[in-house]
Amino acid sequence: MSVTAAKGFTAAGIVAGIKENGNPDLALVVNTGPRRAAAGVFTSNRVKAAPVLWSEQVLKSGRLSAVILNSGGANACTGPKGFQDTHATAEKVADVLGVGAGEVAVCSTGLIGVLLPMDKLLPGVETAVGQLSEHGGEKAAIAIKTTDTVHKTSVVTKDGWTVGGMAKGAGMLAPGLATMLVVLTTDADLDSDALDKALRAATKVTFDRVDSDGCMSTNDTVLLLASGASEVTPEYAEFAEAVRAVCDDLGQQLIRDAEGASKDIKVEVINAATEDDAVEVGRSIARNNLLKCAIHGEDPNWGRVLSAIGTTSAAFEPDRLNVAINGVWVCKNGGVGEDRDKVDMRYREVHIVADLAAGSETATIWTNDLTADYVHENSAYSS
Amino acid sequence: MSVTAAKGFTAAGIVAGIKENGNPDLALVVNTGPRRAAAGVFTSNRVKAAPVLWSEQVLKSGRLSAVILNSGGANACTGPKGFQDTHATAEKVADVLGVGAGEVAVCSTGLIGVLLPMDKLLPGVETAVGQLSEHGGEKAAIAIKTTDTVHKTSVVTKDGWTVGGMAKGAGMLAPGLATMLVVLTTDADLDSDALDKALRAATKVTFDRVDSDGCMSTNDTVLLLASGASEVTPEYAEFAEAVRAVCDDLGQQLIRDAEGASKDIKVEVINAATEDDAVEVGRSIARNNLLKCAIHGEDPNWGRVLSAIGTTSAAFEPDRLNVAINGVWVCKNGGVGEDRDKVDMRYREVHIVADLAAGSETATIWTNDLTADYVHENSAYSS
Repeated sequence: MSVTAAKGFTAAGIVAGIKENGNPDLALVVNTGPRRAAAGVFTSNRVKAAPVLWSEQVLKSGRLSAVILNSGGANACTGPKGFQDTHATAEKVADVLGVGAGEVAVCSTGLIGVLLPMDKLLPGVETAVGQLSEHGGEKAAIAIKTTDTVHKTSVVTKDGWTVGGMAKGAGMLAPGLATMLVVLTTDADLDSDALDKALRAATKVTFDRVDSDGCMSTNDTVLLLASGASEVTPEYAEFAEAVRAVCDDLGQQLIRDAEGASKDIKVEVINAATEDDAVEVGRSIARNNLLKCAIHGEDPNWGRVLSAIGTTSAAFEPDRLNVAINGVWVCKNGGVGEDRDKVDMRYREVHIVADLAAGSETATIWTNDLTADYVHENSAYSS
Repeated sequence: MSVTAAKGFTAAGIVAGIKENGNPDLALVVNTGPRRAAAGVFTSNRVKAAPVLWSEQVLKSGRLSAVILNSGGANACTGPKGFQDTHATAEKVADVLGVGAGEVAVCSTGLIGVLLPMDKLLPGVETAVGQLSEHGGEKAAIAIKTTDTVHKTSVVTKDGWTVGGMAKGAGMLAPGLATMLVVLTTDADLDSDALDKALRAATKVTFDRVDSDGCMSTNDTVLLLASGASEVTPEYAEFAEAVRAVCDDLGQQLIRDAEGASKDIKVEVINAATEDDAVEVGRSIARNNLLKCAIHGEDPNWGRVLSAIGTTSAAFEPDRLNVAINGVWVCKNGGVGEDRDKVDMRYREVHIVADLAAGSETATIWTNDLTADYVHENSAYSS
């Protein structure tokens, strides 16, 4: 059901001809109201794609009527012409829907440094508007796929109101296609300040802690649109938890579909002095190529975990560190712990616990192993 | 000639039986004087191997008579017993040579979390002392190899004095074996303060800018020993330049022998506001797995260079960035530049220039491509 699970939304996903392989490549999500509140978070990469610059701008009003998303081209590093193309796309959507262009967010995903085929994209907008449907969420989720092997959707329904969403990508930077895009919708009746607060709180502990390959996109965008169509205004805490749950579910789906990956690795840092310490340590472990290779080889190589921890500024004493892999404490007090042969690594999910013995804070980062398939897919991408 | 190119040094490299495959695994370098000045730089990883903790301590005197180096075991994360083993090794060398243990540095390389076979190592020390020779530099360089395919040595001879050295490893963390070890010797007559200054200046712009896989070792050590046997005290600037040249040469040899690599990538950042900015940007580019995969595929994917630059805090404007790959300015003013098909990437060395257009500082970081061979070698290492 995706973005149309919540009342007050229609969506479409079509073939505009942007992708040469004829797959769906244009999605449209429309908020039919009565409310049109919205919030968004964007990549912190300082090299931002044209659609990110545009959407950040229009989101300042806290109001969106529609989101147009294309796969098949990131429209990043495309200069003034690229920005004009994004603007023209929003204008086209606005014209056909009868709203203002300033209420239309634009998202793009695909190769960096290539202009979009506007002669295909603009007619595609008309086609998409013609196919808008209250049941269009699934098709929209399919149309934003790039190298994703499956489309990703999630829905949480509470007492009279719903949060739903769709996502594409695989980690901070989808290997090869450079973008994670997420559109969330709700029929809860909330203003944009509440949406913004809930969305930032949710992304901070979900998408921000998915780190497939350490590479940050120029196009990452997460939008949350509220229609108010349920006529229910939930408690903020309950709403925030629903948004977090949908973000968490979609984040897990991104990790499970990361290109070339054979393992999903949950890096749980415990007993840190601060949450920031826990995140820094978790990210350092998650980005260690040697560890990621070792996990691929089903090798519980805890020395590489300690090497990664040692590069951080977190509070810890080396001789108090403990590491468990899949429940076996292979490192105790900074040295050899339980027998590493006890670690069973046959399954796709691998759980690493790093105990800093320095406090009581915790954080979990999700990543993948590093595989020859990742190298193959990303060495053969644009050429 | 390696560490015995300079007068006043003897060396040996032998099979002690630490490595199960019967390859040489123990090296000894002795300073026969008359001076025994020394300096060292060590890994900044906070999880330090026992030999690093020991050698940092003994270097505080600015004096070394000998360096004992073993391959076949890193003696990292081995607790109090590991430190006792390092201490016992230094004591053994000191006993046989008739010097103090506080004048003996210890270096180890190999798997983390495994105790060394002292029953083999200690008798090996006696064997090594028996084979010390003014021509032993080559054998010492061979005995510190782990997964290195070639041994690495370098010599610069000036007017009456020499700086020579040996190295092992492949990048910040030798893939699989976790250590870069370097021993430099000189017969120049200089005190430990001058050695320390020259060594820190040299490593800052050489080894510190070799970043094969972004992973920092628990064992990295670079030592510089001076015998004074030439009876020449060179100008400091000339000496510092010779040390830099030897470090640069050895650093290049590490990159060319990086495990699994098929390309050596020179990342040159120009027109940065500060040298720190240039280093930060260079390292961000050098550590970008997607770019490293693209280079492996001979794909001049400049969008990935811009993505990497965008994650830094360096001063730049996105629409003023320029990127050249092998001499072709494929990105100009943050957008599409010259035809990417003009880029010839058939050769092993790839030269990326990132022009930040923000000042006049520069820095060069060396890295490698990311290959399926790297994954294979590092997924099958300890198991």
